[in-house]
Amino acid sequence: MKLKVVSKILDANEKIAQENRKVFDQNRVFVVNLMSSPGAGKTTLLEQTIRSLRDRVRIAVIEGDITGTDDAQRIDALGVPVVQINTEGGCHLDASMVQEALNDLPIGDIELLFVENVGNLVCPAEFYIGEDIKAMVLSITEGHDKPLKYPMMFRQSRAAVINKIDLKDYLDVDIEKIKRDIYTLNPTISLFETSCKTGQGIAAWTEWIETHCLCRRP
Amino acid sequence: MKLKVVSKILDANEKIAQENRKVFDQNRVFVVNLMSSPGAGKTTLLEQTIRSLRDRVRIAVIEGDITGTDDAQRIDALGVPVVQINTEGGCHLDASMVQEALNDLPIGDIELLFVENVGNLVCPAEFYIGEDIKAMVLSITEGHDKPLKYPMMFRQSRAAVINKIDLKDYLDVDIEKIKRDIYTLNPTISLFETSCKTGQGIAAWTEWIETHCLCRRP
Repeated sequence: MKLKVVSKILDANEKIAQENRKVFDQNRVFVVNLMSSPGAGKTTLLEQTIRSLRDRVRIAVIEGDITGTDDAQRIDALGVPVVQINTEGGCHLDASMVQEALNDLPIGDIELLFVENVGNLVCPAEFYIGEDIKAMVLSITEGHDKPLKYPMMFRQSRAAVINKIDLKDYLDVDIEKIKRDIYTLNPTISLFETSCKTGQGIAAWTEWIETHCLCRRP
Repeated sequence: MKLKVVSKILDANEKIAQENRKVFDQNRVFVVNLMSSPGAGKTTLLEQTIRSLRDRVRIAVIEGDITGTDDAQRIDALGVPVVQINTEGGCHLDASMVQEALNDLPIGDIELLFVENVGNLVCPAEFYIGEDIKAMVLSITEGHDKPLKYPMMFRQSRAAVINKIDLKDYLDVDIEKIKRDIYTLNPTISLFETSCKTGQGIAAWTEWIETHCLCRRP
């Protein structure tokens, strides 16, 4: 009974996600659905990515949060278009929220759209919003058991950013195990090890994003 | 329409939670619903708590995970009864999962039951499972913006453990802001600052738990 309800909600979501997809295709926008646990560093990674790419790529951001506009303000300070979605308690973004947010973006003028999802290692992975790729951030402070404990997001993501690598000497964390387990779940995923604090690994990540994005140019 | 569905699910959950509550009352069990983001340190805090209290209090644990039995094995190694719930994709525990798990616990022989919820800073706070108190763990690595961004869990919790305090010198994190914001959301919450690595603050937390638990003794 419960399963039926969930499946109906997912069907309705899929339909709207396809409408979003059409809009993205018509406007040649490359869309990244960015996911992670709370506090893994999504917004900071976005800030770094925008600083690195904004002179060469037209970027916009949709910020998903339960409440508040902190993250949108941080992105706005970098001079790129940003829309804040407040889910008012909801633990993930769905396609209709993104569809509504698109009304407030200059979509014809965007090449790369980041949708920063609500901080949650579970539910966001279940909802297609019309994106080209899902990408995720895992902070090494979360521990090396996370890929096998939360497998779906690692399976669904085209790229995973292993972040806060500058803290590795202060933690009992086995980064090789993290990578091994992620590759076991998803052999073709692209992995990046980054520190937004020291800048380590950021260039590899932004180049990867830029390469994917530029394929869309006419 | 969607709201109606959600409200029906919550009604059904409430009914079963009340049944669990009756079982806990009849057996004088003090039940802590322990919540956090993935990797904030719930299981490690539980290990420390069990080591500290097991000679004086009869403890048991229900472990909630999407998949796997890693956490249950860690608790089992400490010699206390433990049952693993696998939600198979579900992002929170509900009352019926806990009710089923209770069948596998020697409930008449338990004084303190920890229910370690799925790692998720959002949904677990919405589901009453019959517990006496909700308690939460926040790792300082998640950043000082988390209370205001995920207010519900901080509002619902009777205690919050601010964990991994040993890392504070390596992070740009304002712990005073965390405490200030938590108190703003929830003025009567009990706050603890802990490091499961150095042991800092663990005694204050375990004494608090023990005091609440002992009130149940006849």
